[in-house]
Amino acid sequence: MVKKIILLGATGSIGVQTADIIREHPNEFKLVGFAAGKNMDITRKLIAEFKPEIVCVQQLEDARTLAAEYPRVSFVSGAKGLIEIAVYDADVLVNAVLGSVGLEPTLEAIKLGRTIAIANKETLVTAGHLVMDSARHYGADILPVDSEHSALFQALNGEKLEQASRLILTASGGSFRDLTREQLKNVTVQDALNHPNWSMGSKITIDSATMVNKGLEVIEAHVLFDFAYADIDVVLHRESIIHSMVEFQDTSVMAQLGTPDMRVPIQYALSYPDRLPRPEAKRLNLAEIGQLNFKEMDYKRFRALQLAFDAGIAGGTMTTVLNAANEQAVALFLNEEITFLQIEEMIERAMDQHEVLANPDLETILHVDAETRKFVKKMLK
Amino acid sequence: MVKKIILLGATGSIGVQTADIIREHPNEFKLVGFAAGKNMDITRKLIAEFKPEIVCVQQLEDARTLAAEYPRVSFVSGAKGLIEIAVYDADVLVNAVLGSVGLEPTLEAIKLGRTIAIANKETLVTAGHLVMDSARHYGADILPVDSEHSALFQALNGEKLEQASRLILTASGGSFRDLTREQLKNVTVQDALNHPNWSMGSKITIDSATMVNKGLEVIEAHVLFDFAYADIDVVLHRESIIHSMVEFQDTSVMAQLGTPDMRVPIQYALSYPDRLPRPEAKRLNLAEIGQLNFKEMDYKRFRALQLAFDAGIAGGTMTTVLNAANEQAVALFLNEEITFLQIEEMIERAMDQHEVLANPDLETILHVDAETRKFVKKMLK
Repeated sequence: MVKKIILLGATGSIGVQTADIIREHPNEFKLVGFAAGKNMDITRKLIAEFKPEIVCVQQLEDARTLAAEYPRVSFVSGAKGLIEIAVYDADVLVNAVLGSVGLEPTLEAIKLGRTIAIANKETLVTAGHLVMDSARHYGADILPVDSEHSALFQALNGEKLEQASRLILTASGGSFRDLTREQLKNVTVQDALNHPNWSMGSKITIDSATMVNKGLEVIEAHVLFDFAYADIDVVLHRESIIHSMVEFQDTSVMAQLGTPDMRVPIQYALSYPDRLPRPEAKRLNLAEIGQLNFKEMDYKRFRALQLAFDAGIAGGTMTTVLNAANEQAVALFLNEEITFLQIEEMIERAMDQHEVLANPDLETILHVDAETRKFVKKMLK
Repeated sequence: MVKKIILLGATGSIGVQTADIIREHPNEFKLVGFAAGKNMDITRKLIAEFKPEIVCVQQLEDARTLAAEYPRVSFVSGAKGLIEIAVYDADVLVNAVLGSVGLEPTLEAIKLGRTIAIANKETLVTAGHLVMDSARHYGADILPVDSEHSALFQALNGEKLEQASRLILTASGGSFRDLTREQLKNVTVQDALNHPNWSMGSKITIDSATMVNKGLEVIEAHVLFDFAYADIDVVLHRESIIHSMVEFQDTSVMAQLGTPDMRVPIQYALSYPDRLPRPEAKRLNLAEIGQLNFKEMDYKRFRALQLAFDAGIAGGTMTTVLNAANEQAVALFLNEEITFLQIEEMIERAMDQHEVLANPDLETILHVDAETRKFVKKMLK
């Protein structure tokens, strides 16, 4: 049976690679709808290629233009459109939008019991308790797309969660892993965008350099697999070959390995519980790689990762503050308004001034998110 | 519910460690019987500690002596006794005897649908087709105890076998991994018994140095998981931390890792499908280890591994010849009657003179086994 896929965030890095997977497996997957932001060139190409039933774009105007061009396709737009397409009839919703805008559509799709392939970590980081509680209540599967969480998910496959003792996330260290904090003072946006192993969007590449990305992953892992923060470790592994590991109570460690290629975890989320061939992909050859290196995480060097653990342990609205402050600060950095080290400085100050609200509802989360962004912007002046 | 365990080969390395696991988990496991060879000291200690219902020893005389000492225990002896104890009422039969003597008891226990935890690789290598056909027919589970096969078994847990594309066994390289063939000419028995990672019996330590052990494991993997030899790889991995891997058709590789400790796979075979705690065991710390190394296997350097692949591909009685020739040659080497390199020479000559019989029955296997040993002994003269 062909699985019907809705893809939110089709023009981003994960979105484009999700389209690759659907293209490679026409007998297994059909893209029935996608949300695409503002890039009309890619949107038109995707419509021509995949002939979807529904498309969401950011601007109402663009939706109207496209509706005139493609009379057989339904067009929706904006935040409301994103919810409409999220609940459109399908088997799997791939949430690959950036930022907290992915939260509401996800919650609405969960209410329909949809399987969610989640690449939008902000949704889990800011509202993990709402998402997972709702998923349990409505019987919706939440499948990770991130390579690390996919690795954890695969390592837990066939196992009993309560017999697992520790999650071990690997971290490449990002673009600046070999620099000292002193050297970090003068790095540029261009330096930061040059990730050694993974080809990704610019926001996530910066997050990888600050290690906020690993921090968000730690929080995401806590949410997805219900592990205490004390039982989640991060180990530096520069080659990004072991994508993450699970230690069990018998001391066995199960790991998922592969050449760094996001299409593997994306495909796994779509094909789960099966695995489909990827004949054109590069197979892992450990003899050729020769050596895998591991180093203890230095939380003083990677201060933002410590902040993420702190935010996770504080819980409640604090992870929303971490995420919103980071999104705002990264935008400022990409715009060359602040330095690289100011990103974590701004996150820390935003966290310091925040009083945690436990078990926040959606409204509270969105409010704290907006307030935090304001707070960060104000710091500039 | 307490699982009742019968342990064949209680005084060997695997047997002793199996007893450790049973001792550590008195609420999960009970040793109802064991077979112990000739060592009466260990036999008496095991009887005093575990209070088994039945015990098998090698000599009839020893059985009689013990029967007088322990009137509540049934004693059996010899090859016939080994079969009697193998079919004694239990949940799991651990077959940890050395050599092809383990074959018949295993086949008899399989007929009763018993779960077999198999550490006796010769049984699978010489009569894998009989064992697995019979296990399928009688619905008996065959659980590997060897660390490599346990790793493969764990990596396949929750997966569909037909979606796995390759088995990748890791090999430490044994005591002589850094020596050239020229340097191998003069190694002694003592040199060979000094394995870098694993503490094992002397026969298996020699097999590890010749790489016959890895060859037997390749054949065992072929038998257990029904993979073609072309889809079984061996990679040199000196640290023995990754115990083996499975590649799937989506290019994902699942691996099982741990500090080298045979008690982990032994316990897994007993506790499967659950994992029990091992609180006193050393947890894996990759940052402390720092580095995992991998090197392509050199089949010219490790000639015996090539011979094992050849024997496996030839099939039929050829794997029996490989195993019997090796057992005989290793005995001669341990007895200092031949040199280290003569082990593989003898195996090769035994294989060269043998005409393969396809699908051999038990009688044929035992005949070929005996004939091969005779042939090897004759080479000495």
